[in-house]
Amino acid sequence: MINTDILIIGAGPTGLFTVFEAGLLKLKCHLIDALPQAGGQCSEIYPKKPIYDIPAFPEILAGELVDNLMKQIEPFQPGFTLGERAETIDKQEDGTFIVTTNKGTKHRAPVVAIAGGLGSFEPRKPPIANIVKYEDHGVEYIIRDPEMYRDKDVVIAGGGDSALDWSIFLTDVAKSVTLIHRRNEFRGALDSVEKVQELKNLGKIELITPAEVVDITGTEKVEAVSVKRNGEIFNRPCDHFIPLFGLAPKLGPIADWGLEIEKNAIKVDNSLDYQTNIPGIYAIGDVNTYPGKLKLILCGFHEATLMCQSAYQRIHPDKRYVMKYTTVGGVEGFDGSKKEAPKAVVKAIE
Amino acid sequence: MINTDILIIGAGPTGLFTVFEAGLLKLKCHLIDALPQAGGQCSEIYPKKPIYDIPAFPEILAGELVDNLMKQIEPFQPGFTLGERAETIDKQEDGTFIVTTNKGTKHRAPVVAIAGGLGSFEPRKPPIANIVKYEDHGVEYIIRDPEMYRDKDVVIAGGGDSALDWSIFLTDVAKSVTLIHRRNEFRGALDSVEKVQELKNLGKIELITPAEVVDITGTEKVEAVSVKRNGEIFNRPCDHFIPLFGLAPKLGPIADWGLEIEKNAIKVDNSLDYQTNIPGIYAIGDVNTYPGKLKLILCGFHEATLMCQSAYQRIHPDKRYVMKYTTVGGVEGFDGSKKEAPKAVVKAIE
Ligand SMILES: Cc1cc2nc3c(=O)[nH]c(=O)nc-3n(C[C@H](O)[C@H](O)[C@H](O)COP(=O)(O)OP(=O)(O)OC[C@H]3O[C@@H](n4cnc5c(N)ncnc54)[C@H](O)[C@@H]3O)c2cc1C
Ligand SMILES: Cc1cc2nc3c(=O)[nH]c(=O)nc-3n(C[C@H](O)[C@H](O)[C@H](O)COP(=O)(O)OP(=O)(O)OC[C@H]3O[C@@H](n4cnc5c(N)ncnc54)[C@H](O)[C@@H]3O)c2cc1C
Repeated sequence: MINTDILIIGAGPTGLFTVFEAGLLKLKCHLIDALPQAGGQCSEIYPKKPIYDIPAFPEILAGELVDNLMKQIEPFQPGFTLGERAETIDKQEDGTFIVTTNKGTKHRAPVVAIAGGLGSFEPRKPPIANIVKYEDHGVEYIIRDPEMYRDKDVVIAGGGDSALDWSIFLTDVAKSVTLIHRRNEFRGALDSVEKVQELKNLGKIELITPAEVVDITGTEKVEAVSVKRNGEIFNRPCDHFIPLFGLAPKLGPIADWGLEIEKNAIKVDNSLDYQTNIPGIYAIGDVNTYPGKLKLILCGFHEATLMCQSAYQRIHPDKRYVMKYTTVGGVEGFDGSKKEAPKAVVKAIE
Repeated sequence: MINTDILIIGAGPTGLFTVFEAGLLKLKCHLIDALPQAGGQCSEIYPKKPIYDIPAFPEILAGELVDNLMKQIEPFQPGFTLGERAETIDKQEDGTFIVTTNKGTKHRAPVVAIAGGLGSFEPRKPPIANIVKYEDHGVEYIIRDPEMYRDKDVVIAGGGDSALDWSIFLTDVAKSVTLIHRRNEFRGALDSVEKVQELKNLGKIELITPAEVVDITGTEKVEAVSVKRNGEIFNRPCDHFIPLFGLAPKLGPIADWGLEIEKNAIKVDNSLDYQTNIPGIYAIGDVNTYPGKLKLILCGFHEATLMCQSAYQRIHPDKRYVMKYTTVGGVEGFDGSKKEAPKAVVKAIE
């Protein structure tokens, strides 16, 4: 059982910044995310694209934004349960909640902050009848650890940035990389497309287009895929088949937690503290809705900040928190670190 | 008459970021501020101090924050009326507002956003009976243009950062700099105190402590000040007397505009769009209050963003605005500039 003060579901920008605001109030946080990495949409969908409306950043790459947030929250030592989907929530007699993931990991906290964005990112799967049988036995939709592919024969399917970028990356790791796509045209950053062309010319990536994987074979694990090109089907032996057709967010299990849902989002009280209809459960960032809601990163930051104040009152009903500016009070990490502004001196001039 | 779409009162971080969000909606902004420079509290009170709770900045100097915001809004070419206090507001028959400053400058707009922070910064004046007579005739409480002091004899009074820093700065400009303070001890950044000590040793700053200016003389303009030290009064000829005892914010004239005031702040509807009780007038940032309000910079950014959406509807009741992410739609400045994410290509690999 993982115990914490605020359990955050979703490690997107909103969930990450919550750790900072909670930390200022001396509350500890733990984050659960279905993705193998932190950053939500920013990391998964557009890490290399610039955002222009983060206040005081005339321009910042989505990936840099996440890196900066990770650095900002570091002193508050958040815990992470990554690559697992929060599945069920149970309220205990003592008022705390237990949240269990699809892999059975249990977390307990007096406050739950749902920062689930558009939902848990789930892979789009190709329509291959027996594919489920091979999941985690040679079929992966998300690359968690590239080392897994060291000296293996890998087949990647897809025509977008993920398929291109992982094909490039794995040429240095895998024994062989085959890239299969329905069309001859790929859609992605120009330099990625050009790099794949170059690696193809060097014989480091084998390209099979226009083609599709239509079947998988193997006793225990993937041993080969069947590829259909121009109406002809042929066998391609391999150790791994990695379909990279993108991830689609699904509100998923959270929709069944008894929360008021509207427009596929969780209704909250924006006139107060972004709490849901269940006391102790808040919803912040893209996942919530209220009159005038904008699904913007900067709005998630504000919502997280107000929510933490309310969570503090809930966790410490007898204490009164007096806000101090970080410039004045400094930032004290749970790791013993301390940042503070240089103090003014009082000094005679002789 | 200055005409604009959104007239912003207060050029602190909230007012500045409003220009950006309004710009995305193709609305033009003009800002009024009592201070001679933009940045509000950040520029006036603590430009060289670090802030730790601006999202995605593990640390940023308040002055840098303002510089970044100025850079971010540049494409939207905001107008500025600086060094003037918004004094009166009049609603016109066509629904627009006319705001007039203490210097008589008139501004007209269909929407007014009050981002006045803790109020208009007003200098703390020393208790010298006839000082008002010499204001702008040799007595200045704020240094707007250091060139004014070129080759003049200047007396500065005060014991804090402003008095120290301007004394240092003016040694290179003025004919002579005299610094008068009630105590021998100064309170400020260590390097400023040390620099003044050094300039004093070099004879470039004359220090008179513990002492006070008790009278001003001169026919049309300042010709001398009377200084009292150890019970003795003596005359010190000079061209300028600059008392730098700090600026205190006062809600001031805005308090009489018929807005609902609570705890020295303007009540707004936070469940919707931060509008005040007068339709067309919004209040955002430190100047407003609502249940759970936090006087934080990041909250002002969010409030400004939601407010601009509402202002857009008010200005264009017939149009429907569909929000586009800056990453997707780019940022088009009024100056013809255009920022956009590099587009994905669709390209065959042969
Ligand atoms: C192409 C693109 C461009 C954009 N451009 C901009 C822009 O310019 N400016 C801007 O402000 N915004 C932009 N956005 C939107 C911005 O990315 C989102 O507003 C932001 O990511 C929301 O942050 P969040 O933390 O609320 O949610 P998300 O980033 O969506 O993160 C939510 C996380 O929760 C996880 N999760 C959900 N449910 C569960 C569960 N049950 N168990 C475990 N994990 C779960 C998800 O896997 C996900 O990682 C853009 C979005 C896209 C796609
Ligand atoms: C020492 C110190 C440390 C701080 N540390 C932090 C921190 O760590 N984090 C944080 O988030 N916040 C911090 N703050 C608070 C932060 O500076 C404010 O929240 C922020 O400046 C508010 O921005 P604003 O734009 O709403 O108002 P302000 O910055 O107050 O700007 C308002 C402007 O409006 C002008 N104005 C008002 N009325 C009129 C009028 N009638 N006519 C013309 N002009 C007018 C004023 O002159 C002023 O320039 C700190 C503040 C101080 C003093």
